[in-house]
Amino acid sequence: MSSNLYVPGLEGIVATQTGISMVDGENGRLVYRGCWAKDLVIGHSFEEAAYLLWHGRLPDSKELVQLKETLQTHRVLPVSIVRLIEALPPDLDVMSALRTIISGMGGNFQAWPPTIDDGIRLTAAVPTIIAAVYRRSKGLPAVTPDPKLDTVAHYLYLLTGTAPTPSQVAAMSAYGILTMEHGLNASTFAARVVTSTASDLASAVCAAIGAMKGPLHGGAPSEVLSMLDEIGTKSKAEPWLRERLERGERLMGFGHRVYKTRDPRAEALRTVTASLTSDDPWLDLAVHVENTAIRLLEEYKPGRRLYTNVEFFAAAVMRSVSMPAELFTPTFTASRMVGWTAHIVEQAANNRIFRPQSTYTGTLPE
Amino acid sequence: MSSNLYVPGLEGIVATQTGISMVDGENGRLVYRGCWAKDLVIGHSFEEAAYLLWHGRLPDSKELVQLKETLQTHRVLPVSIVRLIEALPPDLDVMSALRTIISGMGGNFQAWPPTIDDGIRLTAAVPTIIAAVYRRSKGLPAVTPDPKLDTVAHYLYLLTGTAPTPSQVAAMSAYGILTMEHGLNASTFAARVVTSTASDLASAVCAAIGAMKGPLHGGAPSEVLSMLDEIGTKSKAEPWLRERLERGERLMGFGHRVYKTRDPRAEALRTVTASLTSDDPWLDLAVHVENTAIRLLEEYKPGRRLYTNVEFFAAAVMRSVSMPAELFTPTFTASRMVGWTAHIVEQAANNRIFRPQSTYTGTLPE
Repeated sequence: MSSNLYVPGLEGIVATQTGISMVDGENGRLVYRGCWAKDLVIGHSFEEAAYLLWHGRLPDSKELVQLKETLQTHRVLPVSIVRLIEALPPDLDVMSALRTIISGMGGNFQAWPPTIDDGIRLTAAVPTIIAAVYRRSKGLPAVTPDPKLDTVAHYLYLLTGTAPTPSQVAAMSAYGILTMEHGLNASTFAARVVTSTASDLASAVCAAIGAMKGPLHGGAPSEVLSMLDEIGTKSKAEPWLRERLERGERLMGFGHRVYKTRDPRAEALRTVTASLTSDDPWLDLAVHVENTAIRLLEEYKPGRRLYTNVEFFAAAVMRSVSMPAELFTPTFTASRMVGWTAHIVEQAANNRIFRPQSTYTGTLPE
Repeated sequence: MSSNLYVPGLEGIVATQTGISMVDGENGRLVYRGCWAKDLVIGHSFEEAAYLLWHGRLPDSKELVQLKETLQTHRVLPVSIVRLIEALPPDLDVMSALRTIISGMGGNFQAWPPTIDDGIRLTAAVPTIIAAVYRRSKGLPAVTPDPKLDTVAHYLYLLTGTAPTPSQVAAMSAYGILTMEHGLNASTFAARVVTSTASDLASAVCAAIGAMKGPLHGGAPSEVLSMLDEIGTKSKAEPWLRERLERGERLMGFGHRVYKTRDPRAEALRTVTASLTSDDPWLDLAVHVENTAIRLLEEYKPGRRLYTNVEFFAAAVMRSVSMPAELFTPTFTASRMVGWTAHIVEQAANNRIFRPQSTYTGTLPE
């Protein structure tokens, strides 16, 4: 009953204004609150970047200490939530389990409007929940928290029970910073839609986790690893890739709906991982596959401007920390919590309910 | 970085095409799959209307029996889910608890694309979950399912442990049919956004429940009851309403973002409730308040076309079945499950990821 135009996927429609980030796909630029995201991976911690997204500026040393203390306090789960984890159906996947536990914590996040402090509290709990759920699914006991470790190191420690190396922490921190926030992607958009009804923080985060769980969004970085494992050696790269392209198949880790040039996150992650693992033959292969794939994509799909996306080098980071494939998307979720909660608070502060229209394609009653 | 126009709340933007319903706000018309929604409350059961929304046509008698059997089978919860309910934090509100349990059932709803049968299975479980969670919060034991009762009667029975009267079932059935589906409201939209990432049915339903939980969407029909209780007698209606309007306050149960004329759901519910409770002084008061409020709204806000919305008479139905106020929104959710699951399946069948844009209002790096 509307004379308005149907816009599939809302592509090109501006659904919100935001001070949190700018995703400039045409020029391959990503800005977090006035800073280049790619620069934040040099000399800044995960917590500093998170502070920036939450508060709009980088913290001074005292503010940074305070944030770390808050995150440490709230990474310890309440007893009622530990009990809920123990009662989860044993075969539930990690993303569904994470969503269930966040949902069960909803009673502590009912205030309207939600605040940044609420967002920090909930973000702090996510790595602990992921580790607890994962280890339970493997029949392993939960690891006791170690207050000496910061967020990223602590997450890796909770998963394995052993402290990670400095280069593992550095690689994961870079990954975390570069995946914290990315404009109005489907999960962030889902979170803002839910918030727009004046619903609570946990409701919005559960919606975002559900969207992130979808392979068209949270992606499948494990498929990049499978591809590189299948290719195996540099000499096989070109024939392997040509065969896929001849068959019209998509190459995993290349192309992005928004970026029409190099994804700045992929660029930054390549630099970081290269500096950390300078003589890793696997990374050497990855760079060779990347260069070959970009050349062949230009040959087979001229003008389509398909470049390496963040997933390609995310796969390298995941491999460098021996992350199990089933934790790739949950790990992405743990860092994206920062962006989601910043968006939820921003939406609530200047709210208007999302209520688009649909056009009816069925028949009318006689 | 976009030259596109910012559309707050996506108002007027058509975000999807659908064969499920037509909400014609200008003319006060609501169509479910080729049938007037208001006509379905006369001579059709909740299950028949649900079949229509799910399958696109009314069922024959055999199909209706089959649907009822399927709903009966799946309203019994698996043992693992009963255990999860027992482990919920005791102070969790019913909507958060419902979302948590649906999320925990996610392992059984992973198939892509989700099917109508998946949607029916999950819809069947919702009344049982609501009743179990609610009775647990009151320290009451769960009621044993009764296979002789159909969906609506069974829901009321599970809540109280006693069989409802025929007129209670008729009023609740009419309420359920008229609230099953309503185009791209915020919860249905959230469900479609989550589905568009190729995520699973439970993820999409959890997002929808979170949106429904927001007072700007799921509403607050209990406020209509409070208003009528405060007014108390017919003679006080006009001065009470005038006082609120003089102060510029909103009247609960009047006005709707979409309907610019009488809400066809309110009209149909008024007719049904009036026929069921012809000498109920409370309903008599409600009709008097409605008429007075519409007259005064036209006087104070001329041309705004504010009429009774569905919440006004929903409150009457809730009162007629002695529904506790904390179950108003969960009960709305139980019926809206039909529309959500129909939309999720429709989205998955012709999918495109929702990925609108945002414009950045912050500064650029130097």
